[in-house]
Amino acid sequence: MGKEKVAIIGSGNWGSAIARLAGQNVAKHPDVFDQRVPIWVFEEEFKGKKLTEIINTTHVNEKYLPGIQLPENIVAVPDLVEAIKGATALVFVMPHQFLGRIIEQLEGKIEKGVKAVSLIKGVDVKGSEIHIFADVLEEKLGISCSALSGANIASEVATDRFSETTIGYRKKEEGELWKKLFETHNFRVDLIDDVAGVSLCGALKNIVAVAAGFIDGLQYGNNSKAAVMRIGLIEMKNFCQEFFENVKMETFLEESAGVADLITSCLGGRNRKCAEAFVTQKKPFDVLEKEMLNGQKLQGIHTAKEVYTFLQARNRAGAYKLFDKVYKISWEGMPVEQLTEGL
Amino acid sequence: MGKEKVAIIGSGNWGSAIARLAGQNVAKHPDVFDQRVPIWVFEEEFKGKKLTEIINTTHVNEKYLPGIQLPENIVAVPDLVEAIKGATALVFVMPHQFLGRIIEQLEGKIEKGVKAVSLIKGVDVKGSEIHIFADVLEEKLGISCSALSGANIASEVATDRFSETTIGYRKKEEGELWKKLFETHNFRVDLIDDVAGVSLCGALKNIVAVAAGFIDGLQYGNNSKAAVMRIGLIEMKNFCQEFFENVKMETFLEESAGVADLITSCLGGRNRKCAEAFVTQKKPFDVLEKEMLNGQKLQGIHTAKEVYTFLQARNRAGAYKLFDKVYKISWEGMPVEQLTEGL
Repeated sequence: MGKEKVAIIGSGNWGSAIARLAGQNVAKHPDVFDQRVPIWVFEEEFKGKKLTEIINTTHVNEKYLPGIQLPENIVAVPDLVEAIKGATALVFVMPHQFLGRIIEQLEGKIEKGVKAVSLIKGVDVKGSEIHIFADVLEEKLGISCSALSGANIASEVATDRFSETTIGYRKKEEGELWKKLFETHNFRVDLIDDVAGVSLCGALKNIVAVAAGFIDGLQYGNNSKAAVMRIGLIEMKNFCQEFFENVKMETFLEESAGVADLITSCLGGRNRKCAEAFVTQKKPFDVLEKEMLNGQKLQGIHTAKEVYTFLQARNRAGAYKLFDKVYKISWEGMPVEQLTEGL
Repeated sequence: MGKEKVAIIGSGNWGSAIARLAGQNVAKHPDVFDQRVPIWVFEEEFKGKKLTEIINTTHVNEKYLPGIQLPENIVAVPDLVEAIKGATALVFVMPHQFLGRIIEQLEGKIEKGVKAVSLIKGVDVKGSEIHIFADVLEEKLGISCSALSGANIASEVATDRFSETTIGYRKKEEGELWKKLFETHNFRVDLIDDVAGVSLCGALKNIVAVAAGFIDGLQYGNNSKAAVMRIGLIEMKNFCQEFFENVKMETFLEESAGVADLITSCLGGRNRKCAEAFVTQKKPFDVLEKEMLNGQKLQGIHTAKEVYTFLQARNRAGAYKLFDKVYKISWEGMPVEQLTEGL
């Protein structure tokens, strides 16, 4: 058997942090991995230079992860098809909005037997259909796709703070491979046979983080915040068990991807912060997105809308009371004080 | 059948907050409850007056829950045996250090068929034996004892902030009775057939809160804090399933007494706060107890010691790595930086 050739697709904050670990680990396991790890970088100018050139000369992604040295075997490549050429193990790590275009470029160019892992947050909703991105990748590209998610603020992982993550796998040996690629002394990887659960946690927790931010804005205190987080965790689990097959309850209640990531997101995180500002500053979310996120989308409220649309289409609106409230407060002008009514 | 006669034993911060709810609810259900609710108050002087007199004239426990009006049917009684005379439903809510003396006074004075609920935090460890206080009450007083615990900071419950709690019952109808006594619009009660799990959550979460405080003191960030909380929750569950019969996994992972109370305690709470100060101020805990808690005991470190002693006696030291670390850092001078090593 030849060595695994890793390629990383996406080079934002999280992509760069995870590339750093992957670069270190392929060097540690030269028997398993090819030593060169291409990372596809959406080419842009930063301070008058091309971002790929900056990365390949300074070994720092100065735009998205400044101050953090990347291993020299991480090679920035501006052309997507070139970046993945010959790769046997693909890491997808980018905002889900870009996935459609990436898949178009990759269709027909990926060989049989290639494995992938999705670090993409979110869900793909079309009417009464809902899909995780690992399934989208499997279907469109014919590859076997795992998922990685956990309590992983990129800046903390990048500075080797103790943290944990969860990989949901289809085949145990694929899970083991991804673990070998990502695990370090201070970045512990747990494996579980649940791609859907791991993926969905990463999307749905953002809705709960918005609710937690509302509670912070209302200054209701820690009892209320803990109650909303508990209810949110149960709704996450119930939602996944209702609409996806073979989802494991442990993923939500025991894994880093579940309870721990929920905690991190409700303690810090942009969803919590913007939702708090929504209450205290009384500005609509589109204004807050511009002011606080440089115009980036606030994931939690958009996921809340997608989930609401989906539940409507399935005639299940109202069965998930907290998700429902977050949608109605964010998008339909429901007074935020009604958040805890009837939960 | 006669009406239930409630008596409350204990009148600290939490006892007073819960007495307020009980007083309101007996008034709401005159068909079920006798209207007078005696609350046993350990008599002491406060600003030159007897505390019982203050409570019975101003209807405020000015020492332990200032500013909060109690219903007039809550009657402070300084004599314990008089307070419980004729009672059919006893609420035990006091620091566990006082329970031994209280039981001595009550032995032989309680009639058959009396029900009780324990709001006492902690566990009773003697060598290789461990007991919850609900079991101690059952055995010593021959009463059927439920347990109530949850994400319940007293001051927030006293001001009707939205919160939840869990009652673990032996018999469903007893659970229903306690629910009727405590539940309000903003204090939601869940019932579960698991007295031990509910009781143990209230004790063990304080160990985890100490660990969370260490992480805060070390400034490791939210990933690490979430990881430690997740590991702590799993150890709580495993500990209870190993040493107690019929403990339910849902109590830990889905109930307010479990995951939600853990969150509240790790966000705020005295255990977290003192543990943070232990790291940043580099003072031993006995000094911090004096400075920060007016000489009261810091529950988390004492429970950590009891659990460690118990596990030693059972030859299971080392099987609970986080509990073990909290003990060794708090009591044996292990450097706090070793907290996350080998978890």
